[in-house]
Amino acid sequence: MPPLPSPLLNPRLSSSLKPLLLLSQSSLAPWKFQIPKQLVSVKRRTSSCLASNQSSDNGGRSGGGGRYGALSPSPLADEVHRIDVNPPKGTRDFPPEDMRLRNWLFNHFREVSRCFGFEEVDYPVLESEALFIRKAGEEIRDQLYCFEDQGNRRVALRPELTPSLARLVIQKGKSLSLPLKWFAIGQCWRYERMTRGRRREHYQWNMDILGVPEVTAEAELIASIVAFFKRIGITELDVGLKVSSRKVLQEVLGCYSVPENLFGKVCIIIDKIEKIPVDEIKRELNATGLSEEAIEELLQVLSIKSLTKLEEILGVAGEAIADLKQLFSLAEKFGYSDWIQFDASVVRGLAYYTGIVFEGFDREGKLRAICGGGRYDRLLSTFGGDDVPACGFGFGDAVIVELLKEKGLVPELSIEVNNIVCTLDCDLQGAAATVATKLREKGQSVDLVLESKPLKWVFKRAARTNAQRLILVGNTEWQKGMVVVKVLSSGEQYEIKLDELE
Amino acid sequence: MPPLPSPLLNPRLSSSLKPLLLLSQSSLAPWKFQIPKQLVSVKRRTSSCLASNQSSDNGGRSGGGGRYGALSPSPLADEVHRIDVNPPKGTRDFPPEDMRLRNWLFNHFREVSRCFGFEEVDYPVLESEALFIRKAGEEIRDQLYCFEDQGNRRVALRPELTPSLARLVIQKGKSLSLPLKWFAIGQCWRYERMTRGRRREHYQWNMDILGVPEVTAEAELIASIVAFFKRIGITELDVGLKVSSRKVLQEVLGCYSVPENLFGKVCIIIDKIEKIPVDEIKRELNATGLSEEAIEELLQVLSIKSLTKLEEILGVAGEAIADLKQLFSLAEKFGYSDWIQFDASVVRGLAYYTGIVFEGFDREGKLRAICGGGRYDRLLSTFGGDDVPACGFGFGDAVIVELLKEKGLVPELSIEVNNIVCTLDCDLQGAAATVATKLREKGQSVDLVLESKPLKWVFKRAARTNAQRLILVGNTEWQKGMVVVKVLSSGEQYEIKLDELE
Repeated sequence: MPPLPSPLLNPRLSSSLKPLLLLSQSSLAPWKFQIPKQLVSVKRRTSSCLASNQSSDNGGRSGGGGRYGALSPSPLADEVHRIDVNPPKGTRDFPPEDMRLRNWLFNHFREVSRCFGFEEVDYPVLESEALFIRKAGEEIRDQLYCFEDQGNRRVALRPELTPSLARLVIQKGKSLSLPLKWFAIGQCWRYERMTRGRRREHYQWNMDILGVPEVTAEAELIASIVAFFKRIGITELDVGLKVSSRKVLQEVLGCYSVPENLFGKVCIIIDKIEKIPVDEIKRELNATGLSEEAIEELLQVLSIKSLTKLEEILGVAGEAIADLKQLFSLAEKFGYSDWIQFDASVVRGLAYYTGIVFEGFDREGKLRAICGGGRYDRLLSTFGGDDVPACGFGFGDAVIVELLKEKGLVPELSIEVNNIVCTLDCDLQGAAATVATKLREKGQSVDLVLESKPLKWVFKRAARTNAQRLILVGNTEWQKGMVVVKVLSSGEQYEIKLDELE
Repeated sequence: MPPLPSPLLNPRLSSSLKPLLLLSQSSLAPWKFQIPKQLVSVKRRTSSCLASNQSSDNGGRSGGGGRYGALSPSPLADEVHRIDVNPPKGTRDFPPEDMRLRNWLFNHFREVSRCFGFEEVDYPVLESEALFIRKAGEEIRDQLYCFEDQGNRRVALRPELTPSLARLVIQKGKSLSLPLKWFAIGQCWRYERMTRGRRREHYQWNMDILGVPEVTAEAELIASIVAFFKRIGITELDVGLKVSSRKVLQEVLGCYSVPENLFGKVCIIIDKIEKIPVDEIKRELNATGLSEEAIEELLQVLSIKSLTKLEEILGVAGEAIADLKQLFSLAEKFGYSDWIQFDASVVRGLAYYTGIVFEGFDREGKLRAICGGGRYDRLLSTFGGDDVPACGFGFGDAVIVELLKEKGLVPELSIEVNNIVCTLDCDLQGAAATVATKLREKGQSVDLVLESKPLKWVFKRAARTNAQRLILVGNTEWQKGMVVVKVLSSGEQYEIKLDELE
């Protein structure tokens, strides 16, 4: 082995020693020091990146002094194209401020679910495409984010969580104790043309009850949605839930001998009633084979907003009426009557609903549906499993944040650390580490200052991280086994033995 | 509109009334009742599913009595193929028991990160493929889970989080206050041939520090890994962390005039040293253009397990030695000297590391690396950004769980609800809802029994959900505004006014 080039004394180390030499060994008045040391940052040297194919015969040490100079040219820089720094179209990064809001929201989802005795579950974000393919002309199907993988399998990023739930329930079979009360918070995807400022991914909170045929299950789900709204400061003056039942449509269609297999398709068309002109709705319904008369009757029934009126038309003894009456009666007992209203036009855009359906809306009518759900007693058999009575809802993370913004209810969330620990003496960096470790072992959070920084910088950082205390490890105190504590809210300052620091 | 068929009295309602009629109106001795009502379940009727294309002229009411009969044939059953009930190859479902373990693990990740003053972030799971394409022959590149989307863009499910972090940091630019201390827990994907029982997705906890050139940053990261191990009951007898620096290799290669741009490639080859025969390593190194002499020297240096020995060969004043000595010195102050050891063979399998590298291993040598990380001061410039000194680690959710199993340290986690609320009287289902709402508003979790069930069933359910109390809403008590409370641990039973129930 040839002799290695005799290295210089590491310039970084010598520079980090500087403050120590400049400083008094005492830290009796530590708050006065300000060491004018710049934040070390690395300059981009494009030339050296471009020169990366040239061989270097001195171990790459031809650059200037300092830690980074010693490493140039970069061994990694095969490419110097500037990448697109944005996340892929329609997707989001979550920098700390956005992540705090996401965690706040998800914690409320979780806390409500826990209060209702639900257990958390999750499924793969990538599923077989077949799981999501239904033939009813759903929007969700057209927007499937699907691919072919390297093994030539058709896969899709899940557009919703319910089919995965159904798959897992069939898989687990009799090992599951009914009723299941499950919740999930998962990312869902849809490939949209991005015309309406909608994103291609969102997170969705789902709660599902499997094994309960009674409407008490739907009532319980709506109760949890209302509990969530209340927790985050949304009132019944801000939002409401429109409720209906697919059985209303089914009873009407039954009178006109409409084939059963068209039911899902008809629901999907009707779901668009507020989005596209009524003539278009009529044309689409007609195309499925519905008579003009049936269509007129259907549209008339869909305009009903009163259960009494519906009863007059459908008769008292139908399942639709019985279910809805029971739900509204339970709503009173749960205490959320003011939050819900009957609206026959609500059918929801998923083919698999069979009974009660509901959706959350803002009363000002500015936003899309906030959440939606219903009963889907027949989903499992479409996958070849045994049916189980089931209902659930999905609650996205997008519209609710829009609503919170509208109402000025987005919480101010900031990082909060208990302590910022620092030393002005490079030789005491290890001592500062010891202090940080002690505090962390007691469950305290510590932002340990990892570089030599002037006190001014430390205070600025403490303000940014909302640190409660500043712990300064000074030479004089440390020799006595002590540190200086400054309570940042009051300015109170004292010395304390490390062992007594809580 | 033709007259609707006169519906029968809903058989479900009449059956649910049965228990009420059978029951005494008193619930003075409520624990004795057992109502032999079967759990309602839905029988699969394949014939009606297959018949779904036939039109039905009686609104689908030709089935037998009961709630489900009234809905047959299913309007949704276009397909009756049994789907594959397993999650896609190499992916996982998280049923409640697995989700509890995942949450337990993630909570520890989060709690440690919080203790160290790190802020949580996240990025899209689907990124542009370009973000992950490096030319160093990394395993991670070969296993990229990539696709072409409908817009003909090359996208990939992220195999790691660091490139997304780099992208976001470049995007945010000067708006970020350095140093950044960020953590993330994200799902990562790799398309493997599935030969070794490895999965295609895992979750990875990442902690990264940007803006700190000093080795204190690496020391802090290793401290957080050690803190995590301690929290979950893993000791320094179970695991260790091997530490080295890429600068060791760089100094050796520098002596042999090896071109800088081969550095990453050489590291990737060396990373396989424990996985493939040494002759194969030599052949691969030779193919990159390294001389026989350089290869022999390199392999000799890589076998060094002592810092003193390394110092003899590289000389005292090199950066590699200085960094490593400082790290081991800091380890003492942090209190984790027993957890780390120098091992020159550690280089890690990602091309972008530039300095200290480390990996966690089980001391019995049964498992793959538990975690790994290092310094990557040059990553941002490969994306066209300004470099920032940076280091970080990734810690997967798979190997650690294997280790916990090996050591018998997997915690027993079960659902725990505060209360199970039920009534044996159908008319009081609403009252039970009122009780549940009251308790939930006080922050208590409530598993509300949504169907008429015998007490035996309720007790069984209470045992499964580890309910602390059973609250029975009985007719006699309810008329007095009271409920019966049974503390399930002690068997203690008392009546209490609803207003006084906490």
